[in-house]
Amino acid sequence: MYRTHTNGELRIENVGEQTTLSGWVQKARNLGGMTFVDLRDRYGITQLVFDMDTNKELCEKARKLGREFVIQATGKISERSNKNKNIPTGDIEIIVNELNILNSSDVPPFTIEDESDGGEEIRMKYRYLDLRRNPIRNALFLRSKMALEVRKYLDGMNFIETETPVLIKSTPEGARDFVVPSRMHQGQFYALPQSPQVFKQLLMISGFDRYYQIVKCFRDEDFRADRQPEFTQIDCEMAFIDQEDILKMFEGLAKYMFKTFKNIDFTEAFQRMSYQEAMERYGNDKPDLRFDMAISELTGLVQNKGFQVFDSVEYVGAISAPNCSEYTRKQIDALTDFVKKPQIGATGLVFVRYNADGTFKSSVDKFYSQEDLKMWAEKLNAKAGDLILVLAGSKKKTLTGLSELRLEMGSILGLRDKNKFSALWVVDFPLLDWDEESQRFHAMHHPFTSPKPEDLHLIDSNPAAIRANAYDFVINGNEIGGGSIRIHDNELQQKMFKLLGFTPEEANNQFGFLMNAFKYGAPPHGGVAFGFDRWVALFQGTDSIRDVIAFPKNNAGRDVMIDSPSVLADDQLKELSLKVL
Amino acid sequence: MYRTHTNGELRIENVGEQTTLSGWVQKARNLGGMTFVDLRDRYGITQLVFDMDTNKELCEKARKLGREFVIQATGKISERSNKNKNIPTGDIEIIVNELNILNSSDVPPFTIEDESDGGEEIRMKYRYLDLRRNPIRNALFLRSKMALEVRKYLDGMNFIETETPVLIKSTPEGARDFVVPSRMHQGQFYALPQSPQVFKQLLMISGFDRYYQIVKCFRDEDFRADRQPEFTQIDCEMAFIDQEDILKMFEGLAKYMFKTFKNIDFTEAFQRMSYQEAMERYGNDKPDLRFDMAISELTGLVQNKGFQVFDSVEYVGAISAPNCSEYTRKQIDALTDFVKKPQIGATGLVFVRYNADGTFKSSVDKFYSQEDLKMWAEKLNAKAGDLILVLAGSKKKTLTGLSELRLEMGSILGLRDKNKFSALWVVDFPLLDWDEESQRFHAMHHPFTSPKPEDLHLIDSNPAAIRANAYDFVINGNEIGGGSIRIHDNELQQKMFKLLGFTPEEANNQFGFLMNAFKYGAPPHGGVAFGFDRWVALFQGTDSIRDVIAFPKNNAGRDVMIDSPSVLADDQLKELSLKVL
Repeated sequence: MYRTHTNGELRIENVGEQTTLSGWVQKARNLGGMTFVDLRDRYGITQLVFDMDTNKELCEKARKLGREFVIQATGKISERSNKNKNIPTGDIEIIVNELNILNSSDVPPFTIEDESDGGEEIRMKYRYLDLRRNPIRNALFLRSKMALEVRKYLDGMNFIETETPVLIKSTPEGARDFVVPSRMHQGQFYALPQSPQVFKQLLMISGFDRYYQIVKCFRDEDFRADRQPEFTQIDCEMAFIDQEDILKMFEGLAKYMFKTFKNIDFTEAFQRMSYQEAMERYGNDKPDLRFDMAISELTGLVQNKGFQVFDSVEYVGAISAPNCSEYTRKQIDALTDFVKKPQIGATGLVFVRYNADGTFKSSVDKFYSQEDLKMWAEKLNAKAGDLILVLAGSKKKTLTGLSELRLEMGSILGLRDKNKFSALWVVDFPLLDWDEESQRFHAMHHPFTSPKPEDLHLIDSNPAAIRANAYDFVINGNEIGGGSIRIHDNELQQKMFKLLGFTPEEANNQFGFLMNAFKYGAPPHGGVAFGFDRWVALFQGTDSIRDVIAFPKNNAGRDVMIDSPSVLADDQLKELSLKVL
Repeated sequence: MYRTHTNGELRIENVGEQTTLSGWVQKARNLGGMTFVDLRDRYGITQLVFDMDTNKELCEKARKLGREFVIQATGKISERSNKNKNIPTGDIEIIVNELNILNSSDVPPFTIEDESDGGEEIRMKYRYLDLRRNPIRNALFLRSKMALEVRKYLDGMNFIETETPVLIKSTPEGARDFVVPSRMHQGQFYALPQSPQVFKQLLMISGFDRYYQIVKCFRDEDFRADRQPEFTQIDCEMAFIDQEDILKMFEGLAKYMFKTFKNIDFTEAFQRMSYQEAMERYGNDKPDLRFDMAISELTGLVQNKGFQVFDSVEYVGAISAPNCSEYTRKQIDALTDFVKKPQIGATGLVFVRYNADGTFKSSVDKFYSQEDLKMWAEKLNAKAGDLILVLAGSKKKTLTGLSELRLEMGSILGLRDKNKFSALWVVDFPLLDWDEESQRFHAMHHPFTSPKPEDLHLIDSNPAAIRANAYDFVINGNEIGGGSIRIHDNELQQKMFKLLGFTPEEANNQFGFLMNAFKYGAPPHGGVAFGFDRWVALFQGTDSIRDVIAFPKNNAGRDVMIDSPSVLADDQLKELSLKVL
C-alpha cells in the first residue's frame, strides 16, 4: 500500500494519527536543523518535516530530494506552530520517520507552478509535465465533470447515448474529410466523421426518439488559430418536435450547466434574436451581448452633404463608445490603426466627440453641422461624453469592421468580464448562402436543414430569401452550439439537393442510404450540436481550447509531444497498396 | 407540438382526458365498422380506435394507413372493453377525432417485430429499420445506461474521464494500426489508437491519479468472427497502487454493475486463479466457471500399459461428464467428430463409461483393467453414472481440445445458463510469450507490463518463467477485462525492450516520448481496460457484439448500409499526394 491518505485530506482533527503519504516533491527548504518538504499530489499539498537532531540519517536523505522526485513518507500527524492559511492542510504537518524514494526526477524543463516560466512550445513538447500544473489540470477536471453532468441531465430527459461509427464514408460536401485506407479492401477508404449528422438522423428514423452523444469529430481544415483537427461535440437529436421544443430543451441544459458550474441562475428565458437583426445591429451572427454598443446605420443621414467618402459608398454605420469623448488623439489613432488592419481593411475611421457640454467635435466638421452630428447621436442613442466611431464602405465589409471595432472597444472598456455570461439564441438563419466563386448556392447550415414552411413558396422565385428552421446558441460572442429542424420529406430533400446543384446521381451516390431511409417512415426531427471544447474553455475562463484538451495539436495539426504525424514503414504502405508521390 | 404523451404512458387514470400521440403504425385491423391501429414509439404501443359510424371519413383515412406510416392522432382516452394485459397501456384506447399523416412508408423489406423474418444481411443493409425492433433497441438502451452507471461509479471514486487523442502515431508493435494520411504534412500519417495505453500512462506521470475513459479503439485485424475494426473500451489507470488495489477497485465496479443491471449481489470476493491453474484445469486462460468438469492429467496413470497411442504422446488428459455414462454410440460419435474438427484437430476420443453399478466400460478395455479405470475415475473425482472423455497428444494442443470439449459438454448439458454469472480474476500471467516463428519473446500483455519483483532475478537465466503483475477479468468464459501494473522505472523498461528484441534506437523511435517522461518522476501505476461491447452483450444475453453496436461492420470490415469503405475522388487522393497501386 502506497498511501493511507492523499495530500489534500489531513486536518487538525487528525493530529496524533500515523499516516503514509505519496506524491511529488513540490519544494524542499532547509531551515537550520530542520528540512521541510512540500509533498504534492492531485488533491493538495502536505508539509513533511525532517529533524536533524532526532533523525540525522533520514534528514540527510530528505536533503537530497530534488524537485519532482516521487516519494513515500510515513510519520505522525502534528499541529503546525506556523500555520498556513492558504491551503486546507495548512494546520498540520507530518513528522516523518520513514522515507522511501519511489522515483527520481531530472530537473524539469520549466517550473511546475501555477505561473510557469515555460513558453507554449516547450510546455506542449512536455505536455505531461504541463498537465501537472494546477490551472491546466483543473481545466481538465472541469471538463470531466461537465461531461458527466451533461450526460446525467440528458439521461434524465430520456436521451439515449448512442455511439456512432468512426470509420464511415467520405462525402465531398463541406469541409475536407480525414480518410483511412482499407487494407482488406485495397484502393478503398473509410473517412472519419465531421459529425455524426446522418447517423443521428437515421437513429430518429429508427425511433430512438431522443439521442445524444459526446463524440470526437474530425475536420481536415487548413488550420486557423484555435482550431483542432479533432474536437468534441455534444451531439443531440429529437423526434416529433418543432424548433420551439428544441430551444426549450437545450435552454434547460444550458441553464443547468450555468447553475451547476457557475452558480448562476438564469431565471428568464434566453434572449432570441433573428440572424438579420444580429447582422444589422452587431455585424455578426454571434453577438457578444455582455455589453450593448449596438451598430446603427447612418447612410441616409450622412450622404449628400458633400463628403465624397460617405457619398460614394453603399453603407455608413457607427457605434457609440460610452464615456470616451475625451480620448486622446493617440488613442483614436490606435483605433484607426486597428480598423486598417488587413483582417478588417477599413480605409479610415471617422470620429465624433460628443462633449460633456453637449457640443460635438468630429473629424468631418468641414462637412457636417452640429445639427447633423446631433442627428447621428440621436440615431445611436449616444449620450454626452460618448465617442462616436463611424466606418463606411460596402455593407458586408463595413458591418464586419464595426463588429470588430465594437468588440475591441468592449475589451478596452472592460465590458467583457469573463465571469459575466450573456446567452442568446440566434434564429431564422437564411437557408442558403450564395457562393460568388462557384456561382451556386451552398447550404448555410447543411443540406438536411428544413426551410421555414412559410417561406417555402420562395423556393423557385427567390431562394436566397428563404429562412431556415436553424438556430445557434451563443454565449459571450462564442457560437457554443447550433442546429436545425431537418427535412423529413423525401421530395423536399430531393428539391433541396437540386437547389444546391447536386445531380440526382451525385445526391444518390453520397446520401442514397439516407434518402432510402426516408422512404420508410421518417418522423419529423431536429437537433443541435454543442462545441464541447469551447464550452469548457468558456466556463474555465480561458480563450484557447488547447487549454481544455489533454493532448492538443498545434496550429499545424502536429502533436509535438509524440511527434505525429510521421512517416510510415515501407511495408505498412505496401500492405495498404499505397504509394506516396 | 406533435404530441402531449408518448405511446407508453397512458393508464386507466387518464380516461376522459384528451391526448395527442405520434408514432409509427405497428398494425391496423378492420373489425366490422371499427378500425384499430396499434401506434408505436420507443416508449410503447397505444391502441387507436376509428369508428365508421361516428366518423366515416376519418375511419376511411385510417383504413389507408400502411405499416410503418408515421402519424399524429388526437382523441379522447377511453377505457377498453377488451383489455390487453400484455402491455402497460392495455387498459385504455384512444377514440380518435383527428388524424394527421406525417409521413408514408414503403413496405419494409422485413417485418419490424421482435422476431423478424429478415436474414442478417438484409437487416444490416437496412440497419435503421432493424433498430426499430425491440430486442435490438433495448440492447442499445442497456448500453447507454451501462455507460452512464460506469461513469457515475468511477466519478464517485474520484476518477477523471479524460479524452485522449484519436489521431496519434503509428507503432509497428502489436496488431496493425489503421492510418490516416496527413494533407498538411505530405507523406506523413497519423494512426488511430489500438488503445490509449501510452496516454493513460502519461496522465499518471501528470499526477491525474485516477483516470478513465469510455473510448473507441481501432485494430486493423484480419477479421475473425465477432470482431469489429472499431470497438469500445472502458479504459482505466491509477497511480500509487499495487495489483491488490486495482483488483479491489474494479471488483467493486463489476459488483455494482451486476447489482444495478442484473440485480445480483456478489457478497463474496470474486474467485482468483493463477494463469497456470486455469491452463492446467480448464485448458484455457478464461475458464467458464458456471460449471466445474475440470480437466485432470492422466499421463502418469495411462502410460506403459501397452496402449501405443497414449505411450507415444506428451500428455493425456480427461474430463468427466456428469450423468452421461449411458450416452449412445451416436452421441459419442458426435463428440468424436467434434474433437476431430480441424479447429481442434484431435486424432480420436477415448471414452470410459462409469456405469451406475460401479463397473467401467471403455473404448480401451483391451489395455486397461477395471482397476486401472477406477484410478482414472478417482483422479477425475468422477462418480458412477459419469462419462469420462480422454484426449491425448501434445500438451498445449490437447489442453485446448479438452477445453473445447468441456465447453461443448457444458452446452449440451445446459450448464451454461445465460442468466447465471460466474466471475473470476485470472492472475500471475507469464510476462513473456516465446514466438517460435520469429524466435523471440513477445510481451504477453504489452511491453509496459511489470514483472513480479520476486521473479525479477530470472530475467537473465530464465525469462520465460517470469510472472507478470498482469490480470484478466473473466465472466462466463469471456475475457471482459485485463490489465497490469506498469513498469515505472526507466532502467527496467529499457531492459524489457531489450528482452523483447528492440534495439535502443527502435525503442527510442517508438516510445521515446514515454521513456523521456519516465525521467521526470513517474509514480507507480497500473490499470485495466474492459471490453465494453462484450460486457454489454453478456448482460444483454446475446452472443454477438454486433447486437449491441448501433451500426456495426460485417466480418469483412464493411458497413453494408452506407457502403463503406469506398473509392475516393481523384482530387482527394491528389491532395493527399497518394497513389493507389
